[in-house]
Amino acid sequence: MNIAVFHGSTRDNGNTEYLTYQAVPKEKGTHIYLKEHDIKPIVDERHAPDGFKEVVDDHTKLIDKMLEHDVYVFSTPIYWYSMSGVMKTFIDRWSQVMKDPNYAHFRGALKDKKVYVIAVGGDKPHIKGLPLIQQFEYICQFFGMSFEGYVIGKASRPGDIKQNEKALTEAGLLLKGL
Amino acid sequence: MNIAVFHGSTRDNGNTEYLTYQAVPKEKGTHIYLKEHDIKPIVDERHAPDGFKEVVDDHTKLIDKMLEHDVYVFSTPIYWYSMSGVMKTFIDRWSQVMKDPNYAHFRGALKDKKVYVIAVGGDKPHIKGLPLIQQFEYICQFFGMSFEGYVIGKASRPGDIKQNEKALTEAGLLLKGL
Amino acid sequence: MNIAVFHGSTRDNGNTEYLTYQAVPKEKGTHIYLKEHDIKPIVDERHAPDGFKEVVDDHTKLIDKMLEHDVYVFSTPIYWYSMSGVMKTFIDRWSQVMKDPNYAHFRGALKDKKVYVIAVGGDKPHIKGLPLIQQFEYICQFFGMSFEGYVIGKASRPGDIKQNEKALTEAGLLLKGL
Amino acid sequence: MNIAVFHGSTRDNGNTEYLTYQAVPKEKGTHIYLKEHDIKPIVDERHAPDGFKEVVDDHTKLIDKMLEHDVYVFSTPIYWYSMSGVMKTFIDRWSQVMKDPNYAHFRGALKDKKVYVIAVGGDKPHIKGLPLIQQFEYICQFFGMSFEGYVIGKASRPGDIKQNEKALTEAGLLLKGL
Repeated sequence: MNIAVFHGSTRDNGNTEYLTYQAVPKEKGTHIYLKEHDIKPIVDERHAPDGFKEVVDDHTKLIDKMLEHDVYVFSTPIYWYSMSGVMKTFIDRWSQVMKDPNYAHFRGALKDKKVYVIAVGGDKPHIKGLPLIQQFEYICQFFGMSFEGYVIGKASRPGDIKQNEKALTEAGLLLKGL
Repeated sequence: MNIAVFHGSTRDNGNTEYLTYQAVPKEKGTHIYLKEHDIKPIVDERHAPDGFKEVVDDHTKLIDKMLEHDVYVFSTPIYWYSMSGVMKTFIDRWSQVMKDPNYAHFRGALKDKKVYVIAVGGDKPHIKGLPLIQQFEYICQFFGMSFEGYVIGKASRPGDIKQNEKALTEAGLLLKGL
Repeated sequence: MNIAVFHGSTRDNGNTEYLTYQAVPKEKGTHIYLKEHDIKPIVDERHAPDGFKEVVDDHTKLIDKMLEHDVYVFSTPIYWYSMSGVMKTFIDRWSQVMKDPNYAHFRGALKDKKVYVIAVGGDKPHIKGLPLIQQFEYICQFFGMSFEGYVIGKASRPGDIKQNEKALTEAGLLLKGL
Repeated sequence: MNIAVFHGSTRDNGNTEYLTYQAVPKEKGTHIYLKEHDIKPIVDERHAPDGFKEVVDDHTKLIDKMLEHDVYVFSTPIYWYSMSGVMKTFIDRWSQVMKDPNYAHFRGALKDKKVYVIAVGGDKPHIKGLPLIQQFEYICQFFGMSFEGYVIGKASRPGDIKQNEKALTEAGLLLKGL
């Protein structure tokens, strides 16, 4: 199965990225680093008379890439107990995609895709990261995607994650048998 | 007590805004509409050798305004089961403020502030909005702010909230006795 | 619509009971006080060769009563952040009912029933009571019941709830329009 | 460190028990099978003029045993999205212990104890078991115990858990380094 990994980190070679490579090695799957792309925040015009205004940025290109894959890994540092702003901005814009006549198939196309989440935080992430996991479950439910699993890692300072045997092991098992 | 309301909606006169005015009328408190301000996404440079690069936008101005108040109302539509991207971006940047030598007092200054949340969504918000509430609780805990209460409203189409007697009543009571 | 209220409190005239009467007055609906009934804990024999052994207590009688109604209010003090043990014991036994040939219709019969929850606790119940709410949502989902709403009240000492205007108001509105 | 394992299952040799032995082998630690003990449901008499009436059952003996240990593993099948009734009944009675003059030290004695949770369920336990995890966190917070980690396993039919490599591996790592 072809896998797209969406990296929501805003720095290079961080703990989240490292943990994610244990699940999906760099040379496997398509790795998309959201921070390298121009993604504008949504302006909610669902109910505007003329609908959404066209936005010129990289979002459509990313959606096209997304639709080419069957398995999605959302990899995000935990910022203030939820996904990073750049990942949130990427997902918020899905509301606009759903109203785009060129993407009338978007919602249906996501059905049955498999979703995994990898999240890394420093402040009791195995407890305080759970609302984030629940939110991904709701997103999956909305589209009929299957939320297959998640790994939460604890790390704050660069390199911390390398000492976290449990998280590394869990990440290594996350997509096993896929 | 002086109240600052942070509006996270991305459209004018929406349901979330309407519900919020039941709690804090337009002419009372300081209403800040995040969508009218330029707020850049955070780039996590907490561990970079030179720390965070200066960012030129409206964020510092908003933080100054925030610090002048004692009660915060975070008012957000529920986008994909969490706060709007613009509100998330505003909050993500607090991590940078905390590293700014000019704002060494930031974390301490928030201690004991009172926080309220108003959230409006269309998809079972009284259940699916709860992770968002939990996340605000964690944010409050981090700073020692007191999470005083929240109202969740159900609405999708413009004006829906006006029919939601329960939510309107709850919003009217939210800050009562403050 | 005929309403059955299941009281999970273990003392008389407590805060939870008082709050519940704001939603369903004593003279309206069928009030069932679980503590007055003999309900044995479940012994999980779902996979035993002969299935569940018959249990002689009041559980079946309560299930019969339950099935005569269309709207269920579960009213529970928050004990250790979840429903009271007596209510849990009552619900745990539903697993046995579902295996009882005389109640083959049980699961289907609950479909589309309307469910409300009233919960009262002393330790930040509006946050720490949320997992309990989520669990009732999952129970409803399992049976296809509709979780229509909930009220959380804060109270510790006898009579506290009478000072809690917000909770009383919310309880008064809870079943309105039913 | 001496470990007490509280088994909340109501059948022998179940999936939860099997998974738990991967974390704490049968010959290691003190294994307490709650179903083998007589534990009466709490009657809330915290505010009764004469306080709690004495209850004759095995609860006090279990509390004494508990206090002899420093690490607690709570192992429970997921019944209706929360801990089993027998485990809930055991924990509910802690409220009575705290009012018992002979156990005035109870709350303080639990401070800094280490807690682990093992939970096994059949219906999306990695999502629907999370409120249960959150509730244990709140219980730990109340006493100042440290919630060190948890494992959630998926299993329904007897023996299922043996096929769940991820859960078995996680359980094997759970108390590592203690």
